[in-house]
Amino acid sequence: MTYEDNIRKVTPYTPGEQPKTKVIKLNTNESPYPPSPRVVEAMEKLDWNKLRLYPDPAMSELTRCIADHYGVKPSEVFAGVGSDDVLSMCFLTFFAGEKPVLFPDITYSFYDVWAEVYRIPYETKKLDGDFRIVPSDYYAPNGGIVIANPNAPTGIGENRAFIEDILEHNSESVVIIDEAYVDFGAESALPLIEKYENLIVVRTMSKSRAMAGMRIGYCFGNEKLIKYLNDVKYSVNSYTLNIPSIAAGKAAIEDTEYFREIVGRIKKTRENTAEELKKLGFSYFPSDTNFIFAKPPAGYKAKDIFLKLKESGIYVRHFDKERISDYLRITIGTDDEMHMLIHTLKEILQ
Amino acid sequence: MTYEDNIRKVTPYTPGEQPKTKVIKLNTNESPYPPSPRVVEAMEKLDWNKLRLYPDPAMSELTRCIADHYGVKPSEVFAGVGSDDVLSMCFLTFFAGEKPVLFPDITYSFYDVWAEVYRIPYETKKLDGDFRIVPSDYYAPNGGIVIANPNAPTGIGENRAFIEDILEHNSESVVIIDEAYVDFGAESALPLIEKYENLIVVRTMSKSRAMAGMRIGYCFGNEKLIKYLNDVKYSVNSYTLNIPSIAAGKAAIEDTEYFREIVGRIKKTRENTAEELKKLGFSYFPSDTNFIFAKPPAGYKAKDIFLKLKESGIYVRHFDKERISDYLRITIGTDDEMHMLIHTLKEILQ
Repeated sequence: MTYEDNIRKVTPYTPGEQPKTKVIKLNTNESPYPPSPRVVEAMEKLDWNKLRLYPDPAMSELTRCIADHYGVKPSEVFAGVGSDDVLSMCFLTFFAGEKPVLFPDITYSFYDVWAEVYRIPYETKKLDGDFRIVPSDYYAPNGGIVIANPNAPTGIGENRAFIEDILEHNSESVVIIDEAYVDFGAESALPLIEKYENLIVVRTMSKSRAMAGMRIGYCFGNEKLIKYLNDVKYSVNSYTLNIPSIAAGKAAIEDTEYFREIVGRIKKTRENTAEELKKLGFSYFPSDTNFIFAKPPAGYKAKDIFLKLKESGIYVRHFDKERISDYLRITIGTDDEMHMLIHTLKEILQ
Repeated sequence: MTYEDNIRKVTPYTPGEQPKTKVIKLNTNESPYPPSPRVVEAMEKLDWNKLRLYPDPAMSELTRCIADHYGVKPSEVFAGVGSDDVLSMCFLTFFAGEKPVLFPDITYSFYDVWAEVYRIPYETKKLDGDFRIVPSDYYAPNGGIVIANPNAPTGIGENRAFIEDILEHNSESVVIIDEAYVDFGAESALPLIEKYENLIVVRTMSKSRAMAGMRIGYCFGNEKLIKYLNDVKYSVNSYTLNIPSIAAGKAAIEDTEYFREIVGRIKKTRENTAEELKKLGFSYFPSDTNFIFAKPPAGYKAKDIFLKLKESGIYVRHFDKERISDYLRITIGTDDEMHMLIHTLKEILQ
């Protein structure tokens, strides 16, 4: 017996690389545009001497602002250190039963990591041949369900009726819809929280709000669920979002105009990039996100292209994983960055 | 069977109140002084447009700076969202065995909350009649040990030999020394990490570094332990400290002069306040922290004084808990704030 026997040993999630040299970074689905000027203004106005005090543990200023913006009650909103923190707290809170939690075999690769670290039983359900979720797979008895919509890394979104069908078949477990990318497409399940008290809808400010570096995520749900979630949060860390995060989150939510503008630009660049990729012989699924999940033309290996792009200073993401190792996940950058990508791909493919 | 059956229901930690009106706030052990001017400068210089990118998940800039300052290797340092996050990750990582984790009955009230939420078996050991930790209590077989030194809310610190004795008897479990208040007194166990590979020493920037609002905690340990801790951290949330936290933490650590100055001032105010409290008939233990744990003179109830101070706009902390309900925990504020406290106490006691 040594102290090693008491240690929880896990295989962690591997985040995309954060290169320190100047590169074109299309590998972690960040926004190519800066956060709203209102965020910058809020930071410039902040009284940094106030850092001596704890932040408001309830983050009321932020949750109230989110609630107003989305037309729900503040008691139906929870916030955390990125949607990873929110999702992790959801796993810990809502998946404490003995039946397996269900999620797709190809999806955000943190779900099985959280299940492992919290020792939650889980079962993955295979996406079909077109990488679509099969709703009837989720009619089986379960201890909870997690669906990313749009799904990652496929980029495919489903409509609200699709999500509602899964909810109709699952009144006995909490259903989490992870909408990290929903602002770029797909239909949000948010209006369904009034009808289904076991539904949690998760969002992030890392993508469409251009604030990955601030770590702000949030979720919506019935106030009973949000209370349970807060009880667990207050049992893990009472003060999570720091003072600048609370102020920046509020400023970002308040600037709807800027938000619409950058999301619109990204969607337009995405459509142009998709066209160009098609011309080069890539195949892909229509994307509802800020990335394209694309398969190189016959005769080319995704991994080789990934490595050659990297040599040229362009980072995209490749998953060395069954069923998806033939694909590249390419974040939508600025128009200039995407031109450079297409230009470089042309050279690699010739 | 309903979805409620799958939910983890816990009794959360209750943080001290964060009043929104102007009061004298001596209830959550914050610093009465602002953070280092270098922190303010770092924030004013920060390029907020960079918030679009994820922070460095390894927080290398910060951990390297902490390592240099304390003369250890960066691989022996871990950082998190306040020491609560660091401690919570430590509980999750190091206390995965079946034997009970041991800690005092009177100590930081989060320990049993973490044990509950992570379903870790634990046993508390009674402090003696003078509120001192009894080392031999920790010779029993266990799955881990947590000692706050100085202890809270008693404020009593122990020397390094005391901690080393506990380590000598516990090679088979991880021993965590929570040094949230160590900069105000007591002897740090930090030099012992080279000798005991099962030792973790936890620190915070919320007290002596005057940055409760930024949420930065860190810990030291053998690089093997730090690796296990990082594996769990990367399995819960890869990106915890946001971009401003990493920059602010670095700036705070670099300003040793300012740090010494404010810690010195707080210690001086503490000694003066203790003298004044003694004159009023309070009894207390010599404090090694930025608070005094004091018992009102005979005939007065701590809770009544707590409520009367609150009416006068002075917040201190009272714990409605066995063995310590006769005490008040009073954070050391500025000299002016402490004069107001003493003045108000005089009125209450007459």
